[in-house]
Order: sequence, then C-alpha cells, then structure tokens
Amino acid sequence: MNDIHQPLIEPAASLRSRRDVLKLFGLGLALPAAASIITACSNAASATTAAQMADMSSASATATAGVDWQAMDRMHMDGIKAFPAKTAAYGNQPLQPHLENGVKVFELTAKVIQWEVTPGKMAEAWAYNNQVPGPEIRVTEGDKVRVVVHNQLPESTAVHWHGVMVPNNMDGVPGLTQDPITPGSTFTYEFTVKNPGSHMYHAHYNSTIQVGKGMLGAFIIEPKDRSKDPAYDHDYTLILNDQLGGFTLNGKSFPATQPLTATVGEKIRIRYMNEGQMIHPMHLHGLPQLTFAKDGWNLPQPYMNDTVNIAPGERWDVIVDCTDPGIWAFHCHILGHAESEQGMFGMVTALIVK
Amino acid sequence: MNDIHQPLIEPAASLRSRRDVLKLFGLGLALPAAASIITACSNAASATTAAQMADMSSASATATAGVDWQAMDRMHMDGIKAFPAKTAAYGNQPLQPHLENGVKVFELTAKVIQWEVTPGKMAEAWAYNNQVPGPEIRVTEGDKVRVVVHNQLPESTAVHWHGVMVPNNMDGVPGLTQDPITPGSTFTYEFTVKNPGSHMYHAHYNSTIQVGKGMLGAFIIEPKDRSKDPAYDHDYTLILNDQLGGFTLNGKSFPATQPLTATVGEKIRIRYMNEGQMIHPMHLHGLPQLTFAKDGWNLPQPYMNDTVNIAPGERWDVIVDCTDPGIWAFHCHILGHAESEQGMFGMVTALIVK
Amino acid sequence: MNDIHQPLIEPAASLRSRRDVLKLFGLGLALPAAASIITACSNAASATTAAQMADMSSASATATAGVDWQAMDRMHMDGIKAFPAKTAAYGNQPLQPHLENGVKVFELTAKVIQWEVTPGKMAEAWAYNNQVPGPEIRVTEGDKVRVVVHNQLPESTAVHWHGVMVPNNMDGVPGLTQDPITPGSTFTYEFTVKNPGSHMYHAHYNSTIQVGKGMLGAFIIEPKDRSKDPAYDHDYTLILNDQLGGFTLNGKSFPATQPLTATVGEKIRIRYMNEGQMIHPMHLHGLPQLTFAKDGWNLPQPYMNDTVNIAPGERWDVIVDCTDPGIWAFHCHILGHAESEQGMFGMVTALIVK
Repeated sequence: MNDIHQPLIEPAASLRSRRDVLKLFGLGLALPAAASIITACSNAASATTAAQMADMSSASATATAGVDWQAMDRMHMDGIKAFPAKTAAYGNQPLQPHLENGVKVFELTAKVIQWEVTPGKMAEAWAYNNQVPGPEIRVTEGDKVRVVVHNQLPESTAVHWHGVMVPNNMDGVPGLTQDPITPGSTFTYEFTVKNPGSHMYHAHYNSTIQVGKGMLGAFIIEPKDRSKDPAYDHDYTLILNDQLGGFTLNGKSFPATQPLTATVGEKIRIRYMNEGQMIHPMHLHGLPQLTFAKDGWNLPQPYMNDTVNIAPGERWDVIVDCTDPGIWAFHCHILGHAESEQGMFGMVTALIVK
Repeated sequence: MNDIHQPLIEPAASLRSRRDVLKLFGLGLALPAAASIITACSNAASATTAAQMADMSSASATATAGVDWQAMDRMHMDGIKAFPAKTAAYGNQPLQPHLENGVKVFELTAKVIQWEVTPGKMAEAWAYNNQVPGPEIRVTEGDKVRVVVHNQLPESTAVHWHGVMVPNNMDGVPGLTQDPITPGSTFTYEFTVKNPGSHMYHAHYNSTIQVGKGMLGAFIIEPKDRSKDPAYDHDYTLILNDQLGGFTLNGKSFPATQPLTATVGEKIRIRYMNEGQMIHPMHLHGLPQLTFAKDGWNLPQPYMNDTVNIAPGERWDVIVDCTDPGIWAFHCHILGHAESEQGMFGMVTALIVK
Repeated sequence: MNDIHQPLIEPAASLRSRRDVLKLFGLGLALPAAASIITACSNAASATTAAQMADMSSASATATAGVDWQAMDRMHMDGIKAFPAKTAAYGNQPLQPHLENGVKVFELTAKVIQWEVTPGKMAEAWAYNNQVPGPEIRVTEGDKVRVVVHNQLPESTAVHWHGVMVPNNMDGVPGLTQDPITPGSTFTYEFTVKNPGSHMYHAHYNSTIQVGKGMLGAFIIEPKDRSKDPAYDHDYTLILNDQLGGFTLNGKSFPATQPLTATVGEKIRIRYMNEGQMIHPMHLHGLPQLTFAKDGWNLPQPYMNDTVNIAPGERWDVIVDCTDPGIWAFHCHILGHAESEQGMFGMVTALIVK
C-alpha cells in the first residue's frame, strides 16, 4: 500500500488536458472510440446546444416513427468526448490543519457561493471553504482534533460529525447538544477521534436544505494499525448526492465528473458516502468490488459484488483489484440518474486502468 | 439481560411531564440547550402557528436576501423543547392473552378511529384495538397461539403473520388461503409458533390502503433458549411508517415520538420494522449499532454500523452499547423525512443515556 | 440437485389450463378458496370490467361512509381466480446456441413489438427475440461465447453484459468501448466467460428508455464445479421491472405472472435480478429464504431472511426449502407495487408447494 493520500482530485487534476492524459496513460487501447475520451477535455460539453435538445425532444415524441437517430448518436458521443470536462473548482480537497499544542486545528467557513456542476451550469451552493463537497478532513485514530466553524450564511447552522464518536456536547444538534451557530458567529468543536473509518461531516440544522445545498464533506480517520485494513494502492472517495445541481459524484455531474485511475495490477479503495435523499446502487463495469467495511467498521466477512447499494447516511468501503485494462464505465444503476435521451449525465464516471 | 418486556412505551409514559423526566434522569448534563428538552413536555408543539409557517415560507423564498433567521431559530428550538410531546394514546402496547387449555388467546378488533399523530394533529386510522401500531403480541417459541380477529371496518379484511411460519390456511391471504373476513364477522387464526424473532402482523387485503391507515403491529417470538441472542438490558421496537399521518415512529411524528432511555453501561436491543412504502436508513448519533438479526433470524456474523437501512417488510435487530451519556439524536437519514425549514419533524427521536 | 435447467416458464407453461393444474398438482388442499386458483386459468382476468372499476373508484371516495365492500370482494377474488392468467407469449425462454469451432454462438435481434403484460393489456416493447425479458443465455464457466446482435430498432443501441467479466472492448458502452450499433447493422460480441453466477445483459445506450422498454435478459454462468453452490431441485429466475407495463415479474403483471412450483421436501433456487429503477423487497410467505450469493458471487456466510431487498442492477440468489405445502403468496412488499383497491396486481406471484 502506498500513496493513500492521493484523493480522486489528484489524478483528475492531471487529466484536464489532452496532453496530460496522453502523458499519464498513453492508453493505446485498440478501441474504436476510446481515443475520443481524450480529444475534448475542454468546455466542449456545451456542444449540446439548446437547439439539439429541442431536436431530441421532438424526436422522442415520434420514437418509432422516424427518430433522427444520427442526431441522437452525435449528442451521445459529444457528451462522452467531453469527459472529463473541466470545471472551475473541485470539492473534497485535502484540508491542512495547523498544530496547536498537539491538537490538529481545522477551519471551516460556511457561505453562499456559485458552484459549477457541469461546464457552464452554475448552481447556488451553501459550501464549506468554497467547495462542494467541503474539504476532506483526514486524521489518524487517537488524534486530538479541533474544528473551528465560521458561519457566514444568512441563517443559523451547526456541524454533525456523522459516524465519528464524539462527546455528546460536540455532536452538533442545536436544541439537544448546543445552541445554533447564528449568522456571523463561530463555534469550536473539539474531540479525540477514536473510531477509524470513512465518516462524514455535514450541517445538522435545517439540514434538508443545508445539506441539500452542499454543506457536507468526508471525515476520514486512518487507523493507527493499518494492518487491519486490506492493502491498496490508491484511496478514492465518492460522495453521492441527488440535490444541488442534480445527480452528482463529488459535486459534479457527467461529463464533469472525475475518472478514477490505476495501473494494471494495482488495487484501489473506494469510500462511498451517500449525502443525498435516495439510494444509489453503484455499478462498476468489468471489475468486481470487494466490500469490506460499513460505516467505517470493517466487516467480519468481506464479500464480492459488482453493484454496491448505498443508502442515505451510509458509507461502504470496497477494494477493486485492477486486473484488466480499459476504460470501465462506473455509474449509479438507477438508469434515470445516469442517462437520458440526450446522453449520459449525472452519476457517471469511469475507472481507467492502463 | 433483564426487563426485556419493557417496551418503548413504558419509559416514554414516564416522560410525559417535566417532573418525571427530572426524577427519572436528573441528567445534569452540562449542555447549553439540553435542559430545554424537559421544559415543555406539554401540548406546546402547537406553538408553531400558521402565522409562523407563513413567515417561514416567505422567508425561504428570499433565503439569501434577508431570511428571518431568528424566527427560524425560535421555531426550530420550540419544536425540540416540546419533545417528547404528549398525545392522547400510544400504540404498540403489550396485549395480554388469556389461557384456554394451554393456548394463548389474543383478541384483535379492527375499526376506524381518530389517531393523534402530533399534538392536535388527528388522522383517520384503521386500527387494531384502537392503537397505531396495533398492540404488541409477544409469545415464546413453541407456544400455541390463537388470535380472534373481529372486523368492525366498512370493508373486508384479513391478517397476515409476516415472518411467522404458520400452516398455509392460517396465512391470511383472501382468495389463496381463506375467504375475506367480511364487515361484522370474525375469523380465528390458530397456530404453534416455531421460528423466534422480530416479526409483524398486518392486513393482507386491500393492503396498500389498510396497512397504510394503520393495520399493523409487532409479533415477537421470544426464543426458548435465550442464550443464542446477545445480552441486553432493554428491548425496544421501532415500527417505521410513511403513510398514515406522514413519517412516523410507532405511529407518532416528532416531537410526539417517544425517546429510548438507558443508563451508561447498559445495552439496548432495537427491533426495527418497516411497515411503510419507502426505505428508512435509521442513523443513531454517537453510539454504533451491532446488527445481529434479519427478519427474525440471527446473522452468522453480526456487524457494526451506524446507519441501518430498513426496506419495506424487513426487520433488523441491533444492540447498542450505551457507553456514553447524553441525548443522542436518532432519525431517518433521508433528511426530508426528518427536518424541514420549520424544524425537525417525522422520523426523529432520541436515545437518552443518563 | 437435478433439473437445474427448468426455468420458471416451464412449470408455468404447464399451468395454462385447469386440467393441467389438476394433473400436475392435484393439490387437494383443505383451503376455503384455494380451489378457485385453478378454476379460471383463462383470459378471465378481463372480468374486471371498466364498469366495476368505476364502481370501485366511487366506492373508495366514500370509504368509511358506505363502501360497496361486496363489489370490492368480488373484484379482488376475480383477480385471484384468474391467476395464472394466460398471455400470448412468455419471456426468459432458454436460447439455444449453435456451435462453431467450439464457440457457443447466440443470436439476438432487437426490435419493436407489442407485448401482452396482462390479458388484453398491450404495451409497446423494445425486445430481444420478441420476448420480455429477452431470452435466457445460460452457459458454463470457461465457455467461449459469441453473441451476434442485430439492431432492427429505429435508433442505435449496444449490449452490456452486466456482471460478466469481459475484455473492455466487449463491454458494450458506445463512446467508451465501441461505436453505437446503428439501425439495421450488426455487432458481434465474443468473450470467454470466467466468473460464474447470476448475471444480466441489457442495452447500454439511451438505456433509461431502452432498458425501460424491455431490452434486458438473464445471463447465467453455471460453475464448472457445482459443488460450491448449495443443492437445489429447481432453478427459477425472477427479473423485476417497474417500467414497461408497470410493475412486472419476468415481464408480466399479476394475475398473468407465473407461479413457482415445487413438491414438499424439494429445494428451489431463486435468482432475483432487478432491471428497474426502484428497490423491490421480495417477501415470500411461509418459507424462509437462505440468501447465499450477491451479484453472482457466493457469500462467505449465507443468512436467512424472508424479505430480500433487491436494488437496481443487483442480483441476489436464495434457496427456499419447501417444507410446508400450500399456495404461498410471493410479492414485492412495497404494497403499492402489489395491491390496489381493485385487488392484487403487479409484482405478485405464488410459490405452490404440493
């Protein structure tokens, strides 16, 4: 196991130009259309024009009586060629703490921003540190952690450390464990992390709205003794959502989602986290998933599967053994969350194994 | 393990006044707002007036341009202060059988009643013995059981013993295993219970409507040999529903839901039962859940988690080790089932560990 | 274990007349209404007339103030008497390959057809080989397989082998692994099957529409070493769907669904496959289910339950030990997928144990 601090955003950042993709992967796959994935790493997703959409709409009305299938094919292919489409900012970026007397101190500022979900499609987000998902907090079992939360929103808020075992008065439920953090004010959470695993943090006040608008992030506690976890070469987090900006993976919709990458023979860990209101059964093509942890707790008996159903609030951790090269489609299998007559969208990405 | 016949309604009944709460728990928790939970155990939930709702509605329309966050805070805090709000009657009350030649005889009468979901909010329910959920039937593996069902509804019905292995002609499916129980008539079910665990009973005729209106209850079969179950100090049942009166736990919506209670060091068993039409992933704050049984059958390998996803018809049993004191929020993590801009509602309760 | 190639359609085909049912089962069950199940194995489901529906509709509007419960009873009983209602064609029929130099060659032709969901209720389907689900492809681990796909649809398509580990260029994702199969053209897939279990095939292009309209089927890979699977006497596949024609099991809605059949003492295997967009928790009355495989992979620890929740894209395999005789209701426990005020419909069938 190496390089476990390589979040999804790192390889994706490297994939934002055709040159970088060629440099990194040089896939040379003998696939009819595979090359196209790297021909349009630009804002080209907007190639799907309103006029084309209108085309498709009228086409579908007469589906069996003379559909313009060539227009449909162009639209579908254009969407895939645009993947991974560049957008202005990325969420789930590692948050660096500073140390104060042995305490790791993190700062979160909640405020209203504009968030680019796909190229050119903006949504009003309520975000931590200008990101959706909020920045990744990653600490180690036994760490003393302090999180200073600044509320720059127009309403009160609070932060719950979902899955992290904290003293009750640090649990983040206004009315039960603290007062609301009013607009303009600050609240400091402090606790020692004791249960390792894949956890989350999110707003726990007016939460249907606040979490829906983006106030959520990953809270990962590395175990002191890493030998209890299976070995892996890359560590990816996929935060699923179905509210702000529609169906998203780490705050982006296809083709702006970021691919996961690996080399043949490597193993990757994927930490699924569902911050939405619907289930999302994530299906990875070609390579089975070994499910080994639920809500941060290792299972007594890991099991194999290819479609991992994640319910709201759940986290599931899997290992994928990247035995076969290729561009493997990876998507929610509620098909309406992944594809329309205009092509793939929403909760779709790919695992690229070179 | 002691006191396993202490259903949820017992501690809740004890919590219906401020005095009782102080007497029972005397929490003395050093939390800014925790005390407020016991200041308004009255019908005060109606403090959320129509005028306030109108306020909020217009406020949300201008969320980022000057929301009245103080009004929102008051409304949210008022809802929590009202918890646990008293309502006129409680469901899931233990049903006492009488003995006839070694047979435990239970009587169920189905009829139309008015049911108080939250203080002042009435719904027409179709209920067994005037309760929603119907009364708890609890027997022991090997018992001979007779249930006499009286139909005082305006339409026919039948009762299915969901999960209980019974002879086919006792299975309660009109047209397949019996004739409908017509209005005004009676049907007697009789069987020997052989598979222990957390089961249910409910209408199996026009069932979308009849179960939706409240014709459902817990059917618990204690094992003869209790050593096969993990040890626990309290035994709680949470029946989830999303039809009659909205999102409910044991027939009540927050703040009229009843808290679960325990003392530090105790273990509690929770029997989740989903009688609704949607999944409900139940998230308990602060204390992990050991899932050890599915549909009444003990798992070969229990596993830890903090969010237990229960699908319609499923039962899941968990053990919670109450290691840490506090008022731990406990709710469905489909946030729209638990909180709105007016505050928490629906499938929300708390585990109070003193 | 014997007779594992006996798909659901075989016993059902044998159940299409009263005579055949009597001959096969001669149930002689002492049940008040059980005999009625075999009195109307004809097109009698159409006995529910529009006039009756109008009756029910007005009746329900006045549910507690004088419902015509006798009309409701007649309608409910008529629906059950019609089960299993005969329809014009059945899906999931075994597809015979021909051998070419040791390769098993299958032919699939996609085109638009009319599909009878219940007697007289037709839906436009996009079907493989004129069936919904498409024909069952069943091979053995290690087989070389070729599938020739002919597209006679008005738009492009492609086929994904869901769960089957294939080389990337055979994975069926236009734009990533191949070009779309345009109208009128043919594409040949070829691979060696290596991971045994219950898999699926379906359209992976404009898939919300194409799969929704019926482009889906079972792809079953028998293990070379069958000793790793539990023993069973019959092998059934239930493909769940919630799009074309509403809520269906193997392309049919109750009362046109086909019963599963067994003799007391036999064990049956059920392969659940969800090709829809919703979860479907399948509840079998009377006889528990031993869940032993997920997505084609045997679980390290099978577990017992009575309600198996299948999410879109998932497959779950179970064994049912048919210890008790009777007609056991078997349905999705989202009640709105199984029963309305007009009676049972949709995802309902029965396991008949003689």
